Amino acid sequence: MSSTSLSFASRAEHRAWLETQSALPEGFRAGTAGFEFTPAEADKPGRMRLALLALDRPTDAFAARFTRNAFPGAPVIVGRERLAAPRLGAVIVNNKISNVAAPGGVEAAERVCAEVARRLGMEPREVLPSSTGVIGWRLPVERMLEAVPAAVASLQARSVLPAAEAIMTTDLYPKVRRAQAGEAAVVGIAKGAGMIEPNLATMLVYLLTDADLPRETLREALAAAVDGSFNLISVDTDTSTSDTVALLSSRRRPAAEGAFRAALLQVCRDLAEDVVRNGEGVHHVVRVRVGGAPDQAAARAVGKAVVNSPLVKCAVAGNDPNVGRLVAAVGKLCGERGLAPDPARVRMAMGGEVLLEGGAMRLDPARERRLVAHLAGAELYRSAPDAAGNFRPPVDFPPHERRVEIEVELGLGAAGAEVLGADLTHEYVTENADYRS
Amino acid sequence: MSSTSLSFASRAEHRAWLETQSALPEGFRAGTAGFEFTPAEADKPGRMRLALLALDRPTDAFAARFTRNAFPGAPVIVGRERLAAPRLGAVIVNNKISNVAAPGGVEAAERVCAEVARRLGMEPREVLPSSTGVIGWRLPVERMLEAVPAAVASLQARSVLPAAEAIMTTDLYPKVRRAQAGEAAVVGIAKGAGMIEPNLATMLVYLLTDADLPRETLREALAAAVDGSFNLISVDTDTSTSDTVALLSSRRRPAAEGAFRAALLQVCRDLAEDVVRNGEGVHHVVRVRVGGAPDQAAARAVGKAVVNSPLVKCAVAGNDPNVGRLVAAVGKLCGERGLAPDPARVRMAMGGEVLLEGGAMRLDPARERRLVAHLAGAELYRSAPDAAGNFRPPVDFPPHERRVEIEVELGLGAAGAEVLGADLTHEYVTENADYRS
Repeated sequence: MSSTSLSFASRAEHRAWLETQSALPEGFRAGTAGFEFTPAEADKPGRMRLALLALDRPTDAFAARFTRNAFPGAPVIVGRERLAAPRLGAVIVNNKISNVAAPGGVEAAERVCAEVARRLGMEPREVLPSSTGVIGWRLPVERMLEAVPAAVASLQARSVLPAAEAIMTTDLYPKVRRAQAGEAAVVGIAKGAGMIEPNLATMLVYLLTDADLPRETLREALAAAVDGSFNLISVDTDTSTSDTVALLSSRRRPAAEGAFRAALLQVCRDLAEDVVRNGEGVHHVVRVRVGGAPDQAAARAVGKAVVNSPLVKCAVAGNDPNVGRLVAAVGKLCGERGLAPDPARVRMAMGGEVLLEGGAMRLDPARERRLVAHLAGAELYRSAPDAAGNFRPPVDFPPHERRVEIEVELGLGAAGAEVLGADLTHEYVTENADYRS
Repeated sequence: MSSTSLSFASRAEHRAWLETQSALPEGFRAGTAGFEFTPAEADKPGRMRLALLALDRPTDAFAARFTRNAFPGAPVIVGRERLAAPRLGAVIVNNKISNVAAPGGVEAAERVCAEVARRLGMEPREVLPSSTGVIGWRLPVERMLEAVPAAVASLQARSVLPAAEAIMTTDLYPKVRRAQAGEAAVVGIAKGAGMIEPNLATMLVYLLTDADLPRETLREALAAAVDGSFNLISVDTDTSTSDTVALLSSRRRPAAEGAFRAALLQVCRDLAEDVVRNGEGVHHVVRVRVGGAPDQAAARAVGKAVVNSPLVKCAVAGNDPNVGRLVAAVGKLCGERGLAPDPARVRMAMGGEVLLEGGAMRLDPARERRLVAHLAGAELYRSAPDAAGNFRPPVDFPPHERRVEIEVELGLGAAGAEVLGADLTHEYVTENADYRS
């Protein structure tokens, strides 16, 4: 989705590039705080971080999109109410505990918002709460209230990067992207590595701008940008109970609506790809371009079926061009949806190599070697278990932005879509078979 | 699904039990053959096995169900034609290559059928072909034709077990189940370990009976039995291009229709659970009982959403009662389908422990320890990587038939369903990241 193609040789190099993305738009400040605590539901201590994003003064120009999961977390329930409020002035985010299906969750979120508002001289409903982490546990509210003053004291107007780091959970590195809309800036941060098939998915995204555009314009632009970015990715099909994308404007700089929409979409697409590339255990980002679909919903569904097939994902992980699994995945989705493509008109390709055409696959050892080279060239890192047999990613930065490129032409119509997904690896299993301990 | 609960301490013990299941019904014989070959599309040699199931004389009483994948393999295309034939006399099955999307696939399948028919004194259309294995490669037809005489020469009327072994691919052990319907027997064999979400999945199942019932009765009974068994399981969501369930009767013994239907359903349910338990990398079989759904389709969809959630699957693999992921998976499916359960009426439990009730989760360290014990008690084996970091299952028999038991009560209606699935493990990734090499 990104038009750029970056590569980084080290965490320091990636970090230097992140700094170039991180200048806050006019009218915003960012702060963080952290503390140790022991959840009531477990007996192991952990560390929670708070991230605070604040406007110099509350704004009427804000927008948000939330998960469609039927059991949304308390912050999402509160956030939906905030959409009707006249102004928003701050966002307070915690990691470690998502405040979903926890007793007294809404009250807990409101207490944290009230304390932030009091310290910032705002109204409680001018503060948006966000949480990400374990489902079902209660927030350590008292400990959070004690930490709010430190978060407020750390507010600075220079960089969003500390906040981008504070919202991380299993993310390997922070995600920050920016684009200009004339004189105005759009700067976004994201966290999210697992439970990612935004619809929305636990993905938290905060987009800050100083573009002087009204609330309704922001809301329409955000809906379009989310649909064209976060709703086209999947790490593991699991739509979180906490997904949130929020957009706030300080309205300090003039901006043309078209340029702003383009900048917002670009930042959202770049962040969406960042989320996939940093997905739990991801070795390969996979882009599926679907064409010839009867409508866009079908095109998206075909793309999602490919990137969500465990067998396709494992084959990609192993740099194994087991392209029959691609045929099976597309055929499964078509069968489920009652789509009946003529096999003679279907075309599939990987890395520019045509695999299926005229109703039959075109496989030979030479083509296989070229496909292996394409897969290996898009690999972010190699697996290697540690002494205990656990697989942990050896990098904490994105070495490059290359992708496995898959094309599927259905021959049924004129609609298309581009979907981003990832492979399925030992590192994903290691991460998720023992996430909490 | 099985009413029995078996356990086995060794492969020999499991094998002895399989023998008790394997006596062929009257009027059937089974044979096998094998040979080395090198596929045209690759440069590594492999071994292909043929399994031959033959009736003493062709029967008018047969039925079959095939995959709904939109790109079915050549054997499925041929098999659908066979359903209209007056009689069926034999089934010829090969492993290693699935004959899907391969140039000249239908002609290749027909050539093999014709040779089997010639050797058995039948018509070509009285032979049903089946194939399982790599997609897109061509069958080694000449080598298969040379092997047919050996398969015919090996036909014997004693045991179906050699055929159950010959159809295996990544299966760890053969699957045979039987039930009686009065004097008549129903004996089934199955292969299938990955690409399993039958709808149908590459699952091949052959059901042999001597019950004297007509074709239409068999077809209705098979449709009902498949819907109540194989369509309620998932290993990895991937619906194969080759799924086939075939039922043949020699009509040698009297049988009441009701008793036959019950026996057929029991054999199908037992085989379905066997397929899940022997699924690629499976450490835990998971049974989800859904109640309070508005209709059965919704109940099944909720059950499938739970067993197909990668995060739930990884949590189960790690004996980690990360039950928030269960809430997220159910909520995701409900959100997608527009189901709006009242959180206060939703109830979820695992291993008999209530987890969610009255709108909040009930978690504490003592409950967590009981959940861990339930998960550990249902574990088939522990993971341990070999020196190269590869994970291979240490057993080639099913140590027990215990399951992780999950209950979901939606409070929306009166419909329910039981779905079987499995966890997601390092062994699945090892198996599928390098299946062909």
